[in-house]
Amino acid sequence: MKVKQVAGGATMTYVAVLDVGEEAFSALSDWAASQQISAAQVTAVGAFERATIGWFDRVAKDYRRIHVGEQCEVLSLIGDIAVGPDGDGRPGQPQPHLHAVLGLEDGTTRGGHLLEGHVWPTLEVVIREAPAELRKTQRPDIGLALIDLGSS
Amino acid sequence: MKVKQVAGGATMTYVAVLDVGEEAFSALSDWAASQQISAAQVTAVGAFERATIGWFDRVAKDYRRIHVGEQCEVLSLIGDIAVGPDGDGRPGQPQPHLHAVLGLEDGTTRGGHLLEGHVWPTLEVVIREAPAELRKTQRPDIGLALIDLGSS
Amino acid sequence: MKVKQVAGGATMTYVAVLDVGEEAFSALSDWAASQQISAAQVTAVGAFERATIGWFDRVAKDYRRIHVGEQCEVLSLIGDIAVGPDGDGRPGQPQPHLHAVLGLEDGTTRGGHLLEGHVWPTLEVVIREAPAELRKTQRPDIGLALIDLGSS
Repeated sequence: MKVKQVAGGATMTYVAVLDVGEEAFSALSDWAASQQISAAQVTAVGAFERATIGWFDRVAKDYRRIHVGEQCEVLSLIGDIAVGPDGDGRPGQPQPHLHAVLGLEDGTTRGGHLLEGHVWPTLEVVIREAPAELRKTQRPDIGLALIDLGSS
Repeated sequence: MKVKQVAGGATMTYVAVLDVGEEAFSALSDWAASQQISAAQVTAVGAFERATIGWFDRVAKDYRRIHVGEQCEVLSLIGDIAVGPDGDGRPGQPQPHLHAVLGLEDGTTRGGHLLEGHVWPTLEVVIREAPAELRKTQRPDIGLALIDLGSS
Repeated sequence: MKVKQVAGGATMTYVAVLDVGEEAFSALSDWAASQQISAAQVTAVGAFERATIGWFDRVAKDYRRIHVGEQCEVLSLIGDIAVGPDGDGRPGQPQPHLHAVLGLEDGTTRGGHLLEGHVWPTLEVVIREAPAELRKTQRPDIGLALIDLGSS
């Protein structure tokens, strides 16, 4: 993943381009951690050769995994980066939260919460970093950490 | 719905987070009216426990309502806020115009013009307000009010 | 297509509104060429009365064309504008790269790489131009020109 800052000012804007074979979620997570991003918006287009997306099961309190085992256009990849809680409920590492819509060979689509996306041939990502901190709080009642503006 | 301003400058950026049970379209409409937003862009991800989306029927000049009566990921919610006409054709209240793509349990998707979206467990919204005014003009030939840059 | 600049500063922001009958890809390409846009992000919502989208076939090294011959909501149109290579591999004209998700009458969706989209009744586009240059390099191994941050 190569990254270039394309605009400064109140909102720093970066373009990231991923190469063949890179896994998008971990590449973006690693970059966010290395930069200690505390509030950002992410959008991307490109294509995956395979992906795993999730649908949140309220009863199981976990994502049901849906495998898309074929070449697909990344029609939209949208989300944000906020600071997740560590094991003790204190601010931990930046966590991307990304939702994907994928286009198959026949023009139908699949989509869900992005768990894994293996890039082929490219993923073009725009990241806008805000001079702020968005914090997530673990919600045991739901089974997820959610952005909590009251704690940010 | 809690709102936090995360960036200032030429484009004011807000993050809004909606809670369990809130209806997204009315919450965003009410906020836009209270802030008298005259030009903004909106993007969001999250999940709904049910939603109503629309497909515009050119003959009926109205939205056909499609009910999605199940837990779904909000894969993308994209749109804008502009100033709608009042009953006399003069600038009235801010109107969000939002389109949603929703991900179901099996990874298939549904989508349309957002009429109602009932949040569970969260909706994370980024709103960028521009220092400008976008005005809509009622178009009786079409059956909708459309952004009219000639009048803005 | 009418265009209005709605914000300046580090990231120039434009709103473009397309009218009935305009073809979106060529309208945006022509505008980008006329303005010599070298780096921008594009998002849009609206509706098409017909569109042609593509899925990239790795073996054929070309887009398979999928025709959507009916009125559809443009649920998302996302992408970027970068500088494509000319015939000799030098920087040429700005090239929009846009992916679309389209909503049909029954709420199902279709999507792909946007080849053609015929607007009815409107397409509302937000374009953010960054003070930078993103350059594409032709990749004969893939069959596409891709953004190459190493050359930008």
